[in-house]
Amino acid sequence: MKVSNRIAGLTGGGSDGWDVFYKARAMMADGVDVTELTIGEHDIRTDPSILDAMDRSARAGHTGYASVPGTPALRDAIAARVEARTGVKTTRDNVLITPGGQSALFTAHHAVCDEGDIALYCDPFYTTYPGTIRGVGAQPRAVPCRPEAAFQPRFADIAAKRDYAVSILVNTPNNPTGVVYDEQTVEGIARACIEYDMWCISDEVYDTQVWSGTHLSPRALPGMAERTLVVGSMSKSHAMTGSRVGWIVGPQEVIAHAINLATHITYGVPGYIQDAALFALTAGPELEDRVGAPFAKRRDLAHEILAGQNAVRLVPNAGAMYLMLDVRDTGLSGEAFALALLHQERIAVMPGESFGEAAAGHVRVAMTVEDARFEDALRRIVAFAGTKSA
Amino acid sequence: MKVSNRIAGLTGGGSDGWDVFYKARAMMADGVDVTELTIGEHDIRTDPSILDAMDRSARAGHTGYASVPGTPALRDAIAARVEARTGVKTTRDNVLITPGGQSALFTAHHAVCDEGDIALYCDPFYTTYPGTIRGVGAQPRAVPCRPEAAFQPRFADIAAKRDYAVSILVNTPNNPTGVVYDEQTVEGIARACIEYDMWCISDEVYDTQVWSGTHLSPRALPGMAERTLVVGSMSKSHAMTGSRVGWIVGPQEVIAHAINLATHITYGVPGYIQDAALFALTAGPELEDRVGAPFAKRRDLAHEILAGQNAVRLVPNAGAMYLMLDVRDTGLSGEAFALALLHQERIAVMPGESFGEAAAGHVRVAMTVEDARFEDALRRIVAFAGTKSA
Repeated sequence: MKVSNRIAGLTGGGSDGWDVFYKARAMMADGVDVTELTIGEHDIRTDPSILDAMDRSARAGHTGYASVPGTPALRDAIAARVEARTGVKTTRDNVLITPGGQSALFTAHHAVCDEGDIALYCDPFYTTYPGTIRGVGAQPRAVPCRPEAAFQPRFADIAAKRDYAVSILVNTPNNPTGVVYDEQTVEGIARACIEYDMWCISDEVYDTQVWSGTHLSPRALPGMAERTLVVGSMSKSHAMTGSRVGWIVGPQEVIAHAINLATHITYGVPGYIQDAALFALTAGPELEDRVGAPFAKRRDLAHEILAGQNAVRLVPNAGAMYLMLDVRDTGLSGEAFALALLHQERIAVMPGESFGEAAAGHVRVAMTVEDARFEDALRRIVAFAGTKSA
Repeated sequence: MKVSNRIAGLTGGGSDGWDVFYKARAMMADGVDVTELTIGEHDIRTDPSILDAMDRSARAGHTGYASVPGTPALRDAIAARVEARTGVKTTRDNVLITPGGQSALFTAHHAVCDEGDIALYCDPFYTTYPGTIRGVGAQPRAVPCRPEAAFQPRFADIAAKRDYAVSILVNTPNNPTGVVYDEQTVEGIARACIEYDMWCISDEVYDTQVWSGTHLSPRALPGMAERTLVVGSMSKSHAMTGSRVGWIVGPQEVIAHAINLATHITYGVPGYIQDAALFALTAGPELEDRVGAPFAKRRDLAHEILAGQNAVRLVPNAGAMYLMLDVRDTGLSGEAFALALLHQERIAVMPGESFGEAAAGHVRVAMTVEDARFEDALRRIVAFAGTKSA
């Protein structure tokens, strides 16, 4: 029986660069002690105070159908949060609660792209981006970003690819690079969106994890609120990855359509999870700081370790839970480097090639193991690179 | 800014027949004591033993990303359940866990329909069906079912509408009618799917709520397992509506594609909810029976009350939590009847017109308030209809 062309072609084809990841998982399943630095998941679990709030809500009876757009209280809390961060007036009518940031990405593209439309995304990119665009029937087109610009999408990069595009997907703080877009970059994105009449879909799920500089949302720039859909999530900010709760913030008329779509895709998010998210968001900054602190500390550690060597070069990271290391001086591809590192040192990192073409010759290191183990792994990565460099 | 044509056209247009529902909600918000018989939600909440299981799982740390296809244990449990009910060999590779039955409906249509394809559904229908089909870019086409056949889709009904259709969506036990498809109907569906090379998307979320006769899944018939996608859910069977956990069961190669799509739409279902569902499914029949028992009892009550009158006629219901009443002898449309009933008796029921064209002149009564109140309401509905009949 024939499946849809759209679903059959979802992931493009060819190698997806995830071999290292699967090999590492297989070694671990065989009992090998691998230092696993591939995935963007905290080494802590969801805080017990959040689980308490969830349990209280469920036992109080919030187990029936929740309001599809989200509970009014959570929508208000997100609106207030986004307004405070962007300076743009935001109400609950600008907010749809979604089952996670990925659902927000899908819904946002669905809302603005028709079959065959061209949707831009920046390379290097988070793994699901092109498939999400294909999933709504649109055509993904990469905007290659340059290592010399720390992989930030500059106006000229976008302009070169903009023909017939209806949207551009951007991501700051960035996964996989850890880079936080600077003012020049965000202004270039805004200029491109306005000049070429494109939607901006802005994935800001790491917006609480900024270790130096400032997070600037494209939505905050003049003329952008009406054409920007911000994607947010509780996953990274509150270590609630598995709870699948996120949101889209955008113009009211688009959100109204997106609510209608959500009725047909998922029919809402569990009420007790929304109540847990509301608790977490209104618990004050301490909870959020505690979730982010280990990454800030490990980033400092990394800067110390990497300062005294030149076997690898660090892409200037200012946020999120990743380091992107340029290993081109070893003469190896990112994938060859990662494979050899896995076999010789039993350290698993992601090849830059897993995230597109622009980050070839790089590897991404997730700062997601405890400090001593992280430090040891990073020293061994540097030493390993040193043995490979000419 | 322009939104996608697909999302702008999601709900077709024209009145959706939900005026009565919104009016009833508004009256209740104003403090009016309305007997609310519109929505398919239990008058009990999720059982505390299930919430215990959820809390145990979360506190044990199952709060990180869960496996996108679903936990192996839950997939195995669903496979065993569906195999026992259909006699068709089923393994975890035939199962994708989804955030609710609605997500399963969307994913199933996405998997088999491309842009512009024609997808059949049976009228009367559950509210989201046409929008779900439009949501994947396909064209919904109704198969009108006849009141004389208790709204069961017979072979000739399907054959009359089958030109160029790639799929048909069927639903037994049925919402809104409460009818359980008989053997003739299911065989007709199978014959149509095989002769016209269509997929069968079989919504069986009420399969534990059968009050007389037997539930027969189209997947159980010869030649059908390879072309049937079964949609299931914990919502109705275990009063877990708000928890959003369901599944698709189908051929392994389609499920593999659907897993890939799920990675891009939702990225999995919370692990602690999956563990709660696993507990509920393996807790034995007592829990399930307890959830279903009130509807069986109220159906008996309804049969008693309706036996002694002829102002309304009951569509022969054998399952689910609904009664469909034929009120055509009153000379009123379902909508006019429901509106007048709301204003005069403060009882809210759904007009048949909310569920398409085939059930015009009917109203759907959800059996979702406690017995005495349900009995009183039904007697008043009958008396009200009596005053309107010529």
